[in-house]
Amino acid sequence: MAFVFRRGIFGVILTQYLFIVKKSYQHKTLGILGGGQLGRMVIQSAINYNLDIHILDPDPSAPCKDIAQKFSVGSLRDFDTVYKFGQACDVITIEIENVNTDALQRLADEGKEVFPQPAIIKLIQDKRLQKQFYKEKGIPTADFVLTENKEEVRLHADFLPAVNKLGREGYDGRGVQILRNESDLDLAFDAPGLLEKLVDFEQEIAVIVAKNQSGEIRTFPAVECAFHPTANLVEFLFSPATITASIEKRAQEIAVEVINAMGMVGILAVEMFVTKDGQVLVNEIAPRPHNSGHHTIEANFTSQFEQHLRSVLNMPLGNTEGRCPAAMVNLLGEEGYTGDAYVEGLDEAIAQKGVYVHLYGKKTTKPFRKMGHVTILDESIEILKRRALAIKNLIKIKTL
Amino acid sequence: MAFVFRRGIFGVILTQYLFIVKKSYQHKTLGILGGGQLGRMVIQSAINYNLDIHILDPDPSAPCKDIAQKFSVGSLRDFDTVYKFGQACDVITIEIENVNTDALQRLADEGKEVFPQPAIIKLIQDKRLQKQFYKEKGIPTADFVLTENKEEVRLHADFLPAVNKLGREGYDGRGVQILRNESDLDLAFDAPGLLEKLVDFEQEIAVIVAKNQSGEIRTFPAVECAFHPTANLVEFLFSPATITASIEKRAQEIAVEVINAMGMVGILAVEMFVTKDGQVLVNEIAPRPHNSGHHTIEANFTSQFEQHLRSVLNMPLGNTEGRCPAAMVNLLGEEGYTGDAYVEGLDEAIAQKGVYVHLYGKKTTKPFRKMGHVTILDESIEILKRRALAIKNLIKIKTL
Repeated sequence: MAFVFRRGIFGVILTQYLFIVKKSYQHKTLGILGGGQLGRMVIQSAINYNLDIHILDPDPSAPCKDIAQKFSVGSLRDFDTVYKFGQACDVITIEIENVNTDALQRLADEGKEVFPQPAIIKLIQDKRLQKQFYKEKGIPTADFVLTENKEEVRLHADFLPAVNKLGREGYDGRGVQILRNESDLDLAFDAPGLLEKLVDFEQEIAVIVAKNQSGEIRTFPAVECAFHPTANLVEFLFSPATITASIEKRAQEIAVEVINAMGMVGILAVEMFVTKDGQVLVNEIAPRPHNSGHHTIEANFTSQFEQHLRSVLNMPLGNTEGRCPAAMVNLLGEEGYTGDAYVEGLDEAIAQKGVYVHLYGKKTTKPFRKMGHVTILDESIEILKRRALAIKNLIKIKTL
Repeated sequence: MAFVFRRGIFGVILTQYLFIVKKSYQHKTLGILGGGQLGRMVIQSAINYNLDIHILDPDPSAPCKDIAQKFSVGSLRDFDTVYKFGQACDVITIEIENVNTDALQRLADEGKEVFPQPAIIKLIQDKRLQKQFYKEKGIPTADFVLTENKEEVRLHADFLPAVNKLGREGYDGRGVQILRNESDLDLAFDAPGLLEKLVDFEQEIAVIVAKNQSGEIRTFPAVECAFHPTANLVEFLFSPATITASIEKRAQEIAVEVINAMGMVGILAVEMFVTKDGQVLVNEIAPRPHNSGHHTIEANFTSQFEQHLRSVLNMPLGNTEGRCPAAMVNLLGEEGYTGDAYVEGLDEAIAQKGVYVHLYGKKTTKPFRKMGHVTILDESIEILKRRALAIKNLIKIKTL
């Protein structure tokens, strides 16, 4: 009798175990808040795993609209909309930070898997909280002071030259400006923000790190970013970064420190400055696939988009090694053109070996809108610098 | 006045030219007959170019159903269904041969771009016509005799051992059988078909070739195929094939000869035998992306799916060089399992460097159904042979 009882228990446990194993990610529905280009590239990757993807986006013609299993139009910032959307999913993640974290917290409290965790999204939504967090955790970052309004910024004239950032709502270069001297103070943001010491950097680099629920952590090799002089958007990216082994090691360590300090599950892009005296300082972080990882689709053994899926679905993380050097060029809407997009120079570009064009499915172009990107593969960074410039001059997003 | 007139004409011509250039493929709708795994992988690639894809498939839960701009359910063999479907598209192509070519011919006659051309699809639908075509054009292929029924096969007992093929409707190993000796004659197909001399081959190889409307032609490097002993489906594929430079050259030449002899625009897979005395003979051809090119997604500079798009849309063809050696393993439904699919061994597989799993979005598995494939990248074919076998033994498509 006791024997039968024990067999019975064992049988129940075994059955439950098998059920859990088999339920795993193969039959889960993944909800993504945001249906832009990042979601689009996540879906391209998710197709390989038969994953059911539900997308929520306020724009009825968002880049994901035709390729998701379910596409819902609604505000990402409205509690009810996000909460109801999440209820129909097993796992919920993001491709943009500006979402209703209270709804996500409620979903998590009710047993949904939400990665990155809502508290982390909340932290990252506010650059003030982020900077204080680095300070508390001993993560190297530029000195800063918090400011409540324009008047408070004025009190810190001695802190200039500095970067003035809005605490919230900054995105794609908005909400960030440089105040070089006292005459710039009139431009200061009149809302809660911060002043950050202008870093005299040698290079800007980024490391993407991912962590899954099992605690596995993997970092991608550091990449080097070159920003557009006025639009404050990444213009060129080169992988690997031209840095010493010790800087590479330090950058990897810092990325791991940040994701561990936050206890985050998901994928995190850590943008860093390398100063002229060889320090590595955290600049900004993004808890999602990021512009600095687009080249990984062709250039690395696992792409950042697949790594995002793997991390939030607790799949084994993929190998992140580079397969060959790569450059990435963002395709921004050309100045002076607004309307139905037409890509000039496309044929000439794709006739070249190792050129990969990714258009984001946006019908309408406008100046500086992110319309796509190009990855170029070649043998050396030296060659890639030349080719990236040529591609940038060749492909222009204009109107029909 | 004459001057103004000439400017006027010039202006009209220029405007039309610009319109044609700008209309190009960037704003065309591509219709694909068939919404299976080949269409699915074409769409994954088409997403990068913002292409509008319409799919027609008889199965409402076909692999493409959720990721096409428009997915229509209907028969591929019904004239009206195919004709109406094609009318809403600018360019029409296929991912399966078994379609209504009369409807495609009507669409072509009415000005639609249909690639491959309907007459070529018609030729390839019938293995008897195909063999006669090779003979006429001097393309090397195994000797054969045409047979109308079982009785006629019996008259050719002296031709055995031979492969008995149905003229039409053969697909994925169906409609093909080996007749080794007279006692096998009872099994002969009792319908129009052919008997083909059994080739004593050393290797089976395949070359994929593409041609666009501008006349550009590109071949992929030859791959080596290993077939499943009973299911007559490719079980393993290795790229590049382990063949001499002269066999490689001959195989490339033959692939180009075939596509040129047919005057075909599109992508063509040419399966060939390498005989023990070093001859290269054409076995079968398929005018669409093919199982023997799945590895190109990760292993070559351009994938066969993108090359398909480029060829039928008259884009410049992509570079076909291999980036590194690769193996491909088909994931067939395990014998003894029919029902909702569950992939066993998936985690262990994707934890490995250079392993890429592609599942085809088929909810239901059954024995030998093509449920997905795995591509493996590594440094040598020797290592890949070992790894491919290990992956085949690791991943099993069973039921939940």
